[in-house]
Amino acid sequence: MEFKKLLEQQSEEAFKKYIPTLSIDCAIFSFHENSLHVLTVKMKDQEFWGLPGGYVKKEENVDDAAVRILKDRTGTENIYLQQFYTFGNLHRSEDAFADYHDTIWNKQRFVSIGYYALAEHSKVNLVIDEYSTNVQWHSIENLPSFMMDHRTILDKALSTLREQLNNHPIGYNLLSDKFTMPELQKLYEAILGKKLNRGNFYRKILRYDILTKLDESRKGGAHKAPDLYSFDLEKYNSALKEGLKGSW
Amino acid sequence: MEFKKLLEQQSEEAFKKYIPTLSIDCAIFSFHENSLHVLTVKMKDQEFWGLPGGYVKKEENVDDAAVRILKDRTGTENIYLQQFYTFGNLHRSEDAFADYHDTIWNKQRFVSIGYYALAEHSKVNLVIDEYSTNVQWHSIENLPSFMMDHRTILDKALSTLREQLNNHPIGYNLLSDKFTMPELQKLYEAILGKKLNRGNFYRKILRYDILTKLDESRKGGAHKAPDLYSFDLEKYNSALKEGLKGSW
Repeated sequence: MEFKKLLEQQSEEAFKKYIPTLSIDCAIFSFHENSLHVLTVKMKDQEFWGLPGGYVKKEENVDDAAVRILKDRTGTENIYLQQFYTFGNLHRSEDAFADYHDTIWNKQRFVSIGYYALAEHSKVNLVIDEYSTNVQWHSIENLPSFMMDHRTILDKALSTLREQLNNHPIGYNLLSDKFTMPELQKLYEAILGKKLNRGNFYRKILRYDILTKLDESRKGGAHKAPDLYSFDLEKYNSALKEGLKGSW
Repeated sequence: MEFKKLLEQQSEEAFKKYIPTLSIDCAIFSFHENSLHVLTVKMKDQEFWGLPGGYVKKEENVDDAAVRILKDRTGTENIYLQQFYTFGNLHRSEDAFADYHDTIWNKQRFVSIGYYALAEHSKVNLVIDEYSTNVQWHSIENLPSFMMDHRTILDKALSTLREQLNNHPIGYNLLSDKFTMPELQKLYEAILGKKLNRGNFYRKILRYDILTKLDESRKGGAHKAPDLYSFDLEKYNSALKEGLKGSW
């Protein structure tokens, strides 16, 4: 069936089921091959990429809707999910459905609540559903053009990660259980958007006393096998409470 | 006129004018007599205090609605205003209007977008309008009972201030142009919710090199007149960009 027809057909049902005017958009991040990635979806009939999203049921908590949408779109549960900002500019969403009938659900004014999620790369299913033609990870160093204001939403998610790096368990949720110091540094560099001095980074991160050096190293590769670390969760969480850069 | 009648009468107009299901609540802070205060409103027919709030017009950006609501409720413009979280639990707001007719505007499910504002205490007008019986500042050390989930909203605003203290110009927007070091320390203590060591605080804040020591002191009082300081805005803003505790 033509996609426009499908949306028209589902429109009445959507008005019954969901809170009007309200949507959720998710910036789902993972760390893969030393680069921060974001999950993007290409909707049918759309030229540009979008962030996965959905709507809030009339009898559903907003946070629960975000969990449900994340599960539907990625097959993952119990991953780190944080609301970060609500996007409410007039006309932020209508262009994408310009040639659709004015009364359909999708062409409303939507105020969209942004959530970011931190996922393990390999555990996310790339689900293509009846609304999409493609789902894929994009490195944030090489982003495509986005539909609506989704680039603004993504940029705000990234600046939130940056601000929260010292207070939220962002490293823990993006890395594997065991990681090398260069991997941790790459992650910090990706989020902060700049190169860090290796010596300074090592000194600072070790001074916080939040890592456990494991009795094993990363096998393979031409160089000397690098040591593996894991987070000492108790110390990490208590350090985050004060802010990783030390309390006043 | 009875208040219930007034709301019933205005209900139809509200459904025409505003986006349904969406509200805005504002935590408006000021620093006064060495204590952090929040502006509270007692609505007619309500037993408990609330945060000032309002609704978003159908043809209005959400951020502009927040500016308008702040101006209507306090007479102030151009003050520091930041969206911080959206509250979307089911049944978060309906108790307050339990004995009103189910179809009135106020008894809808509302998803509420929280904004915090930082105001100069003396510049805020305490506006009592047709919906309220009282408006007053409360010190956060001595808070009353709140209606709906407004205490949750306030607590989230406070924890956001705490997290953003090193990245946002919170001190600058809460203090007068000229302030003493003990006043600045009291402000940090109020936001962080704990006593700070005087010597450590002075050393750290001076090390950031964001203050200008003025050639005057605070007159009056039995003790030696304390020196006055102001923020060096250029240095302050560039330090905030990196995060006040130093960059990585």
